[in-house]
Amino acid sequence: MSPRNKVCILGSGNWGSTAARIIAENVTKLPSFDNTVKIWVYEEIVDGKKLTEIINTHHENVKYLPGHKLPHNVVAVPDAAEVVKDATHIVVVIPHQFIQHLLDTIHGSTRPDARAISLIKGIGISNQGMTTMTQIIHRTLAIPVSSLSGANIANEIAEEKYCETTIGCSDPDEAIVWRSLFNTPYFQVNCVNDVIGVEFCGALKNVVAVGAGFIDGLGLGNNTKAAIIRIGFLEMRRLAMHISGAQIQESTFMESCGIADVITTCYGGRNRRLAEEFVKTGKSMTQLEKELLNGQKLQGYLTAGEVHSYIDSRGVNDHFPLFTNIYQICYEGKPPHSIFDGLNVDFSNDTRTPSPAL
Amino acid sequence: MSPRNKVCILGSGNWGSTAARIIAENVTKLPSFDNTVKIWVYEEIVDGKKLTEIINTHHENVKYLPGHKLPHNVVAVPDAAEVVKDATHIVVVIPHQFIQHLLDTIHGSTRPDARAISLIKGIGISNQGMTTMTQIIHRTLAIPVSSLSGANIANEIAEEKYCETTIGCSDPDEAIVWRSLFNTPYFQVNCVNDVIGVEFCGALKNVVAVGAGFIDGLGLGNNTKAAIIRIGFLEMRRLAMHISGAQIQESTFMESCGIADVITTCYGGRNRRLAEEFVKTGKSMTQLEKELLNGQKLQGYLTAGEVHSYIDSRGVNDHFPLFTNIYQICYEGKPPHSIFDGLNVDFSNDTRTPSPAL
Repeated sequence: MSPRNKVCILGSGNWGSTAARIIAENVTKLPSFDNTVKIWVYEEIVDGKKLTEIINTHHENVKYLPGHKLPHNVVAVPDAAEVVKDATHIVVVIPHQFIQHLLDTIHGSTRPDARAISLIKGIGISNQGMTTMTQIIHRTLAIPVSSLSGANIANEIAEEKYCETTIGCSDPDEAIVWRSLFNTPYFQVNCVNDVIGVEFCGALKNVVAVGAGFIDGLGLGNNTKAAIIRIGFLEMRRLAMHISGAQIQESTFMESCGIADVITTCYGGRNRRLAEEFVKTGKSMTQLEKELLNGQKLQGYLTAGEVHSYIDSRGVNDHFPLFTNIYQICYEGKPPHSIFDGLNVDFSNDTRTPSPAL
Repeated sequence: MSPRNKVCILGSGNWGSTAARIIAENVTKLPSFDNTVKIWVYEEIVDGKKLTEIINTHHENVKYLPGHKLPHNVVAVPDAAEVVKDATHIVVVIPHQFIQHLLDTIHGSTRPDARAISLIKGIGISNQGMTTMTQIIHRTLAIPVSSLSGANIANEIAEEKYCETTIGCSDPDEAIVWRSLFNTPYFQVNCVNDVIGVEFCGALKNVVAVGAGFIDGLGLGNNTKAAIIRIGFLEMRRLAMHISGAQIQESTFMESCGIADVITTCYGGRNRRLAEEFVKTGKSMTQLEKELLNGQKLQGYLTAGEVHSYIDSRGVNDHFPLFTNIYQICYEGKPPHSIFDGLNVDFSNDTRTPSPAL
């Protein structure tokens, strides 16, 4: 009897390649899974050779995860539609601005019984509401979509340093399968049944990290940074509940995708770093994006704008003083020290009877 | 009409002197309080002069808070019984090992309508149960006792860097008064009605900081440290609930005394630092206390032992794998990397319907 299931990976950047390593090792121990793990690689030429050929010959993604061998059962394929066509489990891990184009490419090629999981960080919040990556994927492919997010710096995982992650999956049986694909002794997976709560955490934490960077730029201390992390974390939870109400579970915020990822992102990462530079140099965020990110957009800066558009259109700015201050410092020229204005908000009534996690 | 209330401070270390500065400024704006703030100073000779005389003449605690002037309405007194005798509000802020001796000294001198607040970090947990500082104070003085704790490095507060703190007070009216004595634009006070929850946070966070220091000593990254902080924080909450059940409120852990103080302590402070040295040098904790703390006891190391004694006597070690691992690494020679053993605990059922905060 041939294995029932087949997993594939869409995306071969730093995080996609790291996920491929973990999954390809795990499937060899899972009898219900085919051993081959196809990974879609956006074809590019590296040192005169196709990246797919390099990966399939040398078993290393020399461009995006150099120094870490991939298992031999990882097979790089340049055609995304070809990758998904026989897959029951589709892992989506590409930069969020490319998602719609990728979905259009594979639309019609996926199996009707397939399911997907999104490892993408980012969310679309506007004054019309918000759309998460799992919702965008589900809308095009009409299959169940789960989410995965956590305090997961890809290189540290590739070095097999202990960490945790969170899978949001609404079906308890499917959650077990996804967990079996990702869990390792050094990459510990917890499952919750709150798909979009996990996604909100992954997106909103970048705004808090911008605030933490301002504190570093102002040369303030540990107490102050901890206060900003605490208030930012509680505004994240409040905003997610404001947008999605009963769908969001408070307990999700205590998982790796929540509090742990906020902490990591506020002490490392480029959102924090650029915000620190913003205060120290007095340059605009756009200028710093040009100088330090080759013009790439800073996620926390973008999301701060989207969050503001949402809360401003609903007139609830007073309930989100930190997010409002961060927005005004980034976009409206308010001085960085105004980050403390009106922060004495009471969050103690935000909690309610929690729903049990999986 | 003379003011009804009079506040005094017992203890003039780094934190006591900082608290005196804040309170002495605040009382001048509070008509119901006498302007004079007596502070008990353990008399010692500094540069040939009595410390009380230096404080009363130069308005600076040159030994414990050098470089920061105290308001002129702070009056240093070497006799603790004299300090408390007309006080309605007693602030207790001394190292926890001296508390019983101090209480015996002032016993019989306090007004029957006085109330106290404890700023002391530390808790007594043994296999018989646990005793908090507010309970010890209440037992001797028979007056209501509140608690104050938060992400509060004294020097940063003395420099007026923004931070937050938490007051635990069971009487809502009294909470307002305590808040008015401590709150400033740069020292933001939130009140909760969970006195001992606040104290548990202040004591247990030091154990988590020892774990965080091990991670730094092992040279692991941000992901790993965030995972340890997350799990440690959830074991703190679980242990406080295990010991004191319904008295503890989950929401207390989201205040400054909880999550913010854990973060601060895991990134700075001597518990983290000694634990890092422990891993890097291979020396015993006792040896490091001698070398780096002049033989003073490390709070997190002590508390790790007390916590273990409690959970071991009740056979609930499996519910506290991180605290158990930290204990075994500190006291039983287990290798630091064993900190990750069996950490995949499910905390999602620890939450329950929260009690509203003040």
